[in-house]
Amino acid sequence: MVESIRVIGAGRVGSAISARLSERGIDLREDGAELVLLCVPDGAIADVAGRIEPGPWIAHTSGGTPLAALDPHRRRFGLHPLQTFTLARGPEQLDGSYSAITAESNEARTLGFELAELLGLRPFELADEDRALYHAGAVVASNFLVTLHDAAAELVEAAGAPPEALEPLMRRVIENRFELTGPIARGDWETVERHFEAIRARRPSLEPLYRTLADATEALAVR
Amino acid sequence: MVESIRVIGAGRVGSAISARLSERGIDLREDGAELVLLCVPDGAIADVAGRIEPGPWIAHTSGGTPLAALDPHRRRFGLHPLQTFTLARGPEQLDGSYSAITAESNEARTLGFELAELLGLRPFELADEDRALYHAGAVVASNFLVTLHDAAAELVEAAGAPPEALEPLMRRVIENRFELTGPIARGDWETVERHFEAIRARRPSLEPLYRTLADATEALAVR
Repeated sequence: MVESIRVIGAGRVGSAISARLSERGIDLREDGAELVLLCVPDGAIADVAGRIEPGPWIAHTSGGTPLAALDPHRRRFGLHPLQTFTLARGPEQLDGSYSAITAESNEARTLGFELAELLGLRPFELADEDRALYHAGAVVASNFLVTLHDAAAELVEAAGAPPEALEPLMRRVIENRFELTGPIARGDWETVERHFEAIRARRPSLEPLYRTLADATEALAVR
Repeated sequence: MVESIRVIGAGRVGSAISARLSERGIDLREDGAELVLLCVPDGAIADVAGRIEPGPWIAHTSGGTPLAALDPHRRRFGLHPLQTFTLARGPEQLDGSYSAITAESNEARTLGFELAELLGLRPFELADEDRALYHAGAVVASNFLVTLHDAAAELVEAAGAPPEALEPLMRRVIENRFELTGPIARGDWETVERHFEAIRARRPSLEPLYRTLADATEALAVR
């Protein structure tokens, strides 16, 4: 492991990582660090990397960005914490989260894994050419979960029910390991048809979302 | 409150409810109960209700079924626990879940709320004509969450990453009160375009789902 790290970026991810590295006794310094860790927006990675004098290890925490964005550096890797972060919380946000490590050499892979474990993350290896597909999956699971909740809350509120009632339900779906229940699992198309009628009449903007997901759920139930 | 209840149905919901009522000292009996609680599939409610001699209170636990399914009974209400249940767990599944109460009289409403509270549920009122819209929202939040996870797991697995890595992420999205982060929130369309390319090349069947949800997420981000 390295003993000194320069973290660039103090956003959601950079703040949590810096706080954790500090807790772990890593020497966080601006100059002469053994590793430069870029916690900057995806679009800024290539530019920031290009302005760093080659020599130290360099890594980014982006989900979808290829390692080529770190050119011309060769001692490099990617460490993407598969987690959503908020500035309102601290380094404990890292605990137990998984992390994708992308590397081109055994040395880089070892360092990436060691750094992930130091941060409290559970590392797994991810090939550079698979990053876009992986990151699409991460966006489906997290960002689209926000959208799903928003759509459900809109329907429930339009029906005069409290949207906070959805939270225990959604937590339990995860706790129950995503076991499919409900009308589509039962093949109860009459109920599904009543949903369509109600959505068309009162929240027509949500019909495409309901239809796409109902179709995908039917395919899942059949499997 | 009533002191004796006949629960019809021993599926996921009926089992949990019977166990809880028993814990609470309710007299669970086949004959002469003050309330008959139908925990049967939606499509069977009207048939089962029709075969019960009018007299006692009658209620169903369906999400989307109107009270008219309980005809010819007039002393009736609906109590829908907004939760997903499994036979592998017990009455603790009810604790802290919300419950929609649909009633046509103050007496029925009072009984519905009392029964929900006895069960460990948090009752709220729901108009009979709003049930379909409400239930559509419940299906979006729970059943479609299963589908969303399945799609994300398929992408992540196709990229060679462990699908179990998605769980801490999805739990945190809920803990963080559905705060939207990620490429669409940042307006990073280059990353979103790379997702489309990767999905089209390797999991084209998931493109409609990704597109529909990306569009809805963009609308949400703009709001």
